[in-house]
Amino acid sequence: MPTPSLRRSDKTGLPPGTIVHVGARPTGPAVVSIINYNEHGFDEQVGADVEACVASLQTPEMTWINVAGLHDASLIERLGLALGLHPLVLEDIANASQRPKVEEYDGYLFVVLKMLEYDLEQDQTMVEQVSLILGDNYLVSFQEDSNDVFDPVRARLRNSAGRLRKFAADYLAYALIDAIVDNYFVVLELMGDRIEGIEEQVAEHPEERPLPEIYRLKREMIALRRAVWPLREVLAMLQHSESSLIRPGTVVYLRDVYDHTVQMMDTIESMRDLLSGMMDIYLSGLSNRMNEIVKVLTIFSTIFIPLTFLAGVYGMNFRHFPEIEWRFGYAMFWLICGVIAVVMLLYFRRKRWL
Amino acid sequence: MPTPSLRRSDKTGLPPGTIVHVGARPTGPAVVSIINYNEHGFDEQVGADVEACVASLQTPEMTWINVAGLHDASLIERLGLALGLHPLVLEDIANASQRPKVEEYDGYLFVVLKMLEYDLEQDQTMVEQVSLILGDNYLVSFQEDSNDVFDPVRARLRNSAGRLRKFAADYLAYALIDAIVDNYFVVLELMGDRIEGIEEQVAEHPEERPLPEIYRLKREMIALRRAVWPLREVLAMLQHSESSLIRPGTVVYLRDVYDHTVQMMDTIESMRDLLSGMMDIYLSGLSNRMNEIVKVLTIFSTIFIPLTFLAGVYGMNFRHFPEIEWRFGYAMFWLICGVIAVVMLLYFRRKRWL
Amino acid sequence: MPTPSLRRSDKTGLPPGTIVHVGARPTGPAVVSIINYNEHGFDEQVGADVEACVASLQTPEMTWINVAGLHDASLIERLGLALGLHPLVLEDIANASQRPKVEEYDGYLFVVLKMLEYDLEQDQTMVEQVSLILGDNYLVSFQEDSNDVFDPVRARLRNSAGRLRKFAADYLAYALIDAIVDNYFVVLELMGDRIEGIEEQVAEHPEERPLPEIYRLKREMIALRRAVWPLREVLAMLQHSESSLIRPGTVVYLRDVYDHTVQMMDTIESMRDLLSGMMDIYLSGLSNRMNEIVKVLTIFSTIFIPLTFLAGVYGMNFRHFPEIEWRFGYAMFWLICGVIAVVMLLYFRRKRWL
Amino acid sequence: MPTPSLRRSDKTGLPPGTIVHVGARPTGPAVVSIINYNEHGFDEQVGADVEACVASLQTPEMTWINVAGLHDASLIERLGLALGLHPLVLEDIANASQRPKVEEYDGYLFVVLKMLEYDLEQDQTMVEQVSLILGDNYLVSFQEDSNDVFDPVRARLRNSAGRLRKFAADYLAYALIDAIVDNYFVVLELMGDRIEGIEEQVAEHPEERPLPEIYRLKREMIALRRAVWPLREVLAMLQHSESSLIRPGTVVYLRDVYDHTVQMMDTIESMRDLLSGMMDIYLSGLSNRMNEIVKVLTIFSTIFIPLTFLAGVYGMNFRHFPEIEWRFGYAMFWLICGVIAVVMLLYFRRKRWL
Amino acid sequence: MPTPSLRRSDKTGLPPGTIVHVGARPTGPAVVSIINYNEHGFDEQVGADVEACVASLQTPEMTWINVAGLHDASLIERLGLALGLHPLVLEDIANASQRPKVEEYDGYLFVVLKMLEYDLEQDQTMVEQVSLILGDNYLVSFQEDSNDVFDPVRARLRNSAGRLRKFAADYLAYALIDAIVDNYFVVLELMGDRIEGIEEQVAEHPEERPLPEIYRLKREMIALRRAVWPLREVLAMLQHSESSLIRPGTVVYLRDVYDHTVQMMDTIESMRDLLSGMMDIYLSGLSNRMNEIVKVLTIFSTIFIPLTFLAGVYGMNFRHFPEIEWRFGYAMFWLICGVIAVVMLLYFRRKRWL
Repeated sequence: MPTPSLRRSDKTGLPPGTIVHVGARPTGPAVVSIINYNEHGFDEQVGADVEACVASLQTPEMTWINVAGLHDASLIERLGLALGLHPLVLEDIANASQRPKVEEYDGYLFVVLKMLEYDLEQDQTMVEQVSLILGDNYLVSFQEDSNDVFDPVRARLRNSAGRLRKFAADYLAYALIDAIVDNYFVVLELMGDRIEGIEEQVAEHPEERPLPEIYRLKREMIALRRAVWPLREVLAMLQHSESSLIRPGTVVYLRDVYDHTVQMMDTIESMRDLLSGMMDIYLSGLSNRMNEIVKVLTIFSTIFIPLTFLAGVYGMNFRHFPEIEWRFGYAMFWLICGVIAVVMLLYFRRKRWL
Repeated sequence: MPTPSLRRSDKTGLPPGTIVHVGARPTGPAVVSIINYNEHGFDEQVGADVEACVASLQTPEMTWINVAGLHDASLIERLGLALGLHPLVLEDIANASQRPKVEEYDGYLFVVLKMLEYDLEQDQTMVEQVSLILGDNYLVSFQEDSNDVFDPVRARLRNSAGRLRKFAADYLAYALIDAIVDNYFVVLELMGDRIEGIEEQVAEHPEERPLPEIYRLKREMIALRRAVWPLREVLAMLQHSESSLIRPGTVVYLRDVYDHTVQMMDTIESMRDLLSGMMDIYLSGLSNRMNEIVKVLTIFSTIFIPLTFLAGVYGMNFRHFPEIEWRFGYAMFWLICGVIAVVMLLYFRRKRWL
Repeated sequence: MPTPSLRRSDKTGLPPGTIVHVGARPTGPAVVSIINYNEHGFDEQVGADVEACVASLQTPEMTWINVAGLHDASLIERLGLALGLHPLVLEDIANASQRPKVEEYDGYLFVVLKMLEYDLEQDQTMVEQVSLILGDNYLVSFQEDSNDVFDPVRARLRNSAGRLRKFAADYLAYALIDAIVDNYFVVLELMGDRIEGIEEQVAEHPEERPLPEIYRLKREMIALRRAVWPLREVLAMLQHSESSLIRPGTVVYLRDVYDHTVQMMDTIESMRDLLSGMMDIYLSGLSNRMNEIVKVLTIFSTIFIPLTFLAGVYGMNFRHFPEIEWRFGYAMFWLICGVIAVVMLLYFRRKRWL
Repeated sequence: MPTPSLRRSDKTGLPPGTIVHVGARPTGPAVVSIINYNEHGFDEQVGADVEACVASLQTPEMTWINVAGLHDASLIERLGLALGLHPLVLEDIANASQRPKVEEYDGYLFVVLKMLEYDLEQDQTMVEQVSLILGDNYLVSFQEDSNDVFDPVRARLRNSAGRLRKFAADYLAYALIDAIVDNYFVVLELMGDRIEGIEEQVAEHPEERPLPEIYRLKREMIALRRAVWPLREVLAMLQHSESSLIRPGTVVYLRDVYDHTVQMMDTIESMRDLLSGMMDIYLSGLSNRMNEIVKVLTIFSTIFIPLTFLAGVYGMNFRHFPEIEWRFGYAMFWLICGVIAVVMLLYFRRKRWL
Repeated sequence: MPTPSLRRSDKTGLPPGTIVHVGARPTGPAVVSIINYNEHGFDEQVGADVEACVASLQTPEMTWINVAGLHDASLIERLGLALGLHPLVLEDIANASQRPKVEEYDGYLFVVLKMLEYDLEQDQTMVEQVSLILGDNYLVSFQEDSNDVFDPVRARLRNSAGRLRKFAADYLAYALIDAIVDNYFVVLELMGDRIEGIEEQVAEHPEERPLPEIYRLKREMIALRRAVWPLREVLAMLQHSESSLIRPGTVVYLRDVYDHTVQMMDTIESMRDLLSGMMDIYLSGLSNRMNEIVKVLTIFSTIFIPLTFLAGVYGMNFRHFPEIEWRFGYAMFWLICGVIAVVMLLYFRRKRWL
């Protein structure tokens, strides 16, 4: 039953451990794919069922089960039962409004992450939740939607070369996390490009109103920070975890991803600073320009005010009006007008108002 | 003696341990309800007295006593005596201006929480204080007013299925805290909806002045933060408590609620950022619009200034006034006016003032 | 020798331990009062001298010596000698510009606090320094001025009921600190009332300029924070002190006052947020209103500009001026004026400038 | 070789330990003064050379060597050699752009401080660097310039009374630090006076533009913070130092100076808050005043606009112009003008624009 | 294959440990130079190959290998193989978008730093990455481009005097870091000069628009902070490192550089404060000036409004118009005009609008 948008509040009053999908519209059925591999072999199964998963888990090979789609509560429940997962873990997997975190349970680690992708069509950053269950010889990953972020990892598994096939499930978990974090850089650099674009626009075409775009960037940056800050904690905890599931050789790789998240935090903070600086520049530039216009026009009007008054004076109908009778009265009027205008312009210039 | 609003300062000068109700107007008498339950049975009593409470506490079954209404000092005192509570605890229960906290005493834990509810009628977030006394085989909860936030928990107790009847009082305490925190999400999502509403309004109808609404939201958000920040500490302390009253199996559930509070903090911080960003957008949009109007009108006036001056000139009464006598003087006047207007418009356009 | 205001800098160059009173104008001589009490008896002496103090200290009963007035250096010195206090302690007692702090010395604890009182006459929050010397069976308190904040404690001592007479000097110290902190709530609530008053004023009478009042509140809030922040530390240190002077039974009471200070910090931070939010509202409301006026007036002028031009045109004196001769020229003029005005009003309305 | 201003960058590329004076223009030669003292005697030598220093150090009495002037690299080097100082210490002594710090070396402590003085002539706060070498029975102090901040300490040494002559070198170091910190209060109070002056000015004569003065104060406050923040750390470290050079009896005195720095931090933070609040008040007051003027003038013009139009109307030359011919046409014109003006004034008043 | 700019996102999807150069356009081939030295001898080789490096490493002398240019992946890989470096280290060396950090590996320390240089031609601060591999008897440094920052260190090595030749590789590493940090001061002082320049400009020629320059400085300061903050952590970690590669005698030198970074952080924060204060001054000064102009002009117009109205009145054509007929009507008109103007000027002056 796909609804337009499932919210956290729909769960109010339900007992803990109830598996309810909270998140964006699910599309199509959930797809389960199983990859069994060791140093010598590789075997891939797409569209498998829970029974196939259970069978794979009992083989000595490493097993990577990927579930794309979180709306099939029964699927998650049966898989959870097969793996002996805590009810709260299952609840959290289905609830895509989680915060990135890592939790240690008996025999497995539960990791929640956010995957970022810049959707070029909608011109918007999309956030997707990924949960990982890291067991001794298996890794189960849950995504909201099937997408191609994990494809490079699959390719490296197929290809017998590389460390990936030789190492255990924790290294595979690292590889998936690394793939996710690598994608963050793509999103960040796109943001950087957009910021540079606005910078140029602010400097050269301030009349084009970059404010809504700045606000949108700010909004996306808030979303990004919400994904990256806890991610950093997750990686710090994995790195310093005393769980035997994280082998010592993997720790140095986790430290590497940790460094990447720190680097991203840095970049995000710098971008925030730049954005707010840019907004100041834009706003003050705009008001400067407006003031400039109003000033010039005001000066212009001011020069004409005494001239108009003078014209009014010589339009009066007094019977006794000496200047009116003069031979060069009219010429003199223009002369006075000219003198007034020139004197005022000089005054404004000397006062540096022009 | 129900007074309109009781304040913290009314207690100045009283010795510590004096039970004085501080909070909003109490309505009706305090209502005590007792629920006795174990895995096999369930028994509910509404409108009980202190003696019934004492009797229930002596049975081996789990006992949940709920007191709705904090203004009956004698009731709280007698109940406190029966349970052997510290005088300061009783004082804090009656004083509804407490900060969420947890305190360990010999034989029981004292927890203070804030319950949030969005009152649709008054279009306002209401804050209510809930105190919990967690003993070995009993839980006493004090609310300011009887409301239905705990009803789902009561329903789950009545229903023999579920973990709730099998576990001890600490799990019941968790269930109540969870019910309270679940309600926070409802309030938060309503706030999110209102923020989105303002966002739209700012973008499309800035003349409708969303400022007072933004200020109200800010105010409610401050109240929300004041409830959630210490709540997070409370849950962290409960989770890491060394008290034997918190059984190891309950800790994982407390961690789950803890995660929820962290998630809420996140959401609140993001909302704050969005609100202040929106206000910037609104204010600058407003001043932009105003500037735009003033600019166009100023330009309009500026074009007419020389024309009016010219009309004044030809209204002068000089005796010797060559143009006045010309055959096509009047037509020429209109021609000059047209030329001036066009030249100025072109100038303004080239300067990008239009 | 009462001087208008003694300043910290007047002490520059003096050796450490020099007792110099720094603070507001002392009024009248310093007054020493002694209270001796135990569970069974109570004895009060007002206007005592140092010898009486020494005699009281040697009795087995609890002794509370209160000194009101810090400008009598010789009194403080002799009392300090009798109690064996460190010279720096005596210097700090006399210097009323201290920060709240607690210091442990051999045989006694030295506590500095700030007492707050809202002076209704001067419509201002007054800050006064209180120092406590907590010994094994005595408590010495120093105030700048005699006031009635400690009166409820004296009343409870006189009255044989209550914990106060049964407990030791540390509980008396707690009772005094509690009395001081209780008074903070009175000041805080008065501030809250004033903030609400400004809120209303901002919403309904923005022309009444609440800015100076907002600034005054900000100023007082800064003073309040400076008193409360270190107070919190003082209470945390007392609570976790390993000194044998603080008996275990008193710790739970100190925790209670500690909670009150945390609650106050919370309230102060919220008030700050409200104040700054209110100021934004006020400023933007003010500029909105001003813009509104200027806009309406500008539109009004703009409508008259072409009309005035037209009147000028028909006031010209061209000899050949066809319209002037027309039978209904004047009526037509008014018609044209009406059409122009209506068209412009419609245009402004369609552009939503009105 | 006195140069106008020596900069940190002139040292780029030099090996560590190179003694290069970085700081303001040195005036005159460096002056060395030696004071030998113990409980019974006191001996002072001004304008001594390095040999005299070495001789003094070998006597059992306490020796205080004060060097005023940091530009004599050879003097510093020879003295350093005699005392067995680390090359980096010598480099830091000569480089007056150091941050306050304390470093423990074998046999001596190295302390860097900033001395503040308000130069009344230049109306500016001057910062000077002071370095202390605290050995077992000697103290060497280095200043940029000879000034009189240490004079009260010298006077107390000469005077046989007081703790100073009885205690060891660490107490002398404390006395010097205390003298320096006491001077901070003088500077702070002068700042406080200036802030109060601006406050008054803002409230009563906003047209006098206090902005540059506010900016100057802000600048000096930044310099002050840079001196005080690390000073606080220095004193905390000295106080908790495990070095045997700091005797237990001195620690309580160091704690006292530490308290002073905390108090100063507090004052500085409050002043910053006040300054920024004042600036807000000033700016908004200024724009209020300007808006007020523009509003009144705009209303004034607006009243005259229809009147001027009317005058223009009756100046038209239409042949058929009924009103012109009327007996009381002119009187009626003034009547209409009066009615228009009164109606508009009433309208503006009702709209609360006046 | 020199490309205009290599970005972090180009690495998305590659396995960890892949050596891809990320950074600005490489110019020319990578240049390897080897310096072998001990207390007695010194031997330099420029343009060496990997084999020469390996040979040098096997001698007992200290070996410093400097690689200028990071785009030769194969060179870095072979060198890494020879030194037994972790693949992630090699990846990080090539990726010039790293954050400063220090990592301990078996047998070597890996340090990443940022080198700053002010490019006078482009009037811009350039950031370059430097990586150091510190082994027991060797140091390998990787720069993006060959530049002369390390030249003073080379000169000191050539010159047999000085500590450098006597100490081990860790002291050489310190010397390089010190050279880099020394260069930061040059950049900082240039920035300080520019800030002073803007300060002057703001005070004296506000019409010259220093905003873009302020924004540029802000941008560079953000970059600077990003380099210095983590550098401080790096030096703290090196200083407190328990690695045997850092000899105790070097720690005091590292502390010295650490102090320098703290000092820089201080300076940067002060500069940020100054910049933002300056911007406030500039903006408010600008709007003040604009308001001043508009005010004066508005007052000017306002004085002429009643005069122009009066001229209009006496230009009316009423048949019965008493004043028109008066002998001194015209003179009286000018008198009235003069009176009106003077009265208004006096009023404006009394209201302090002028």
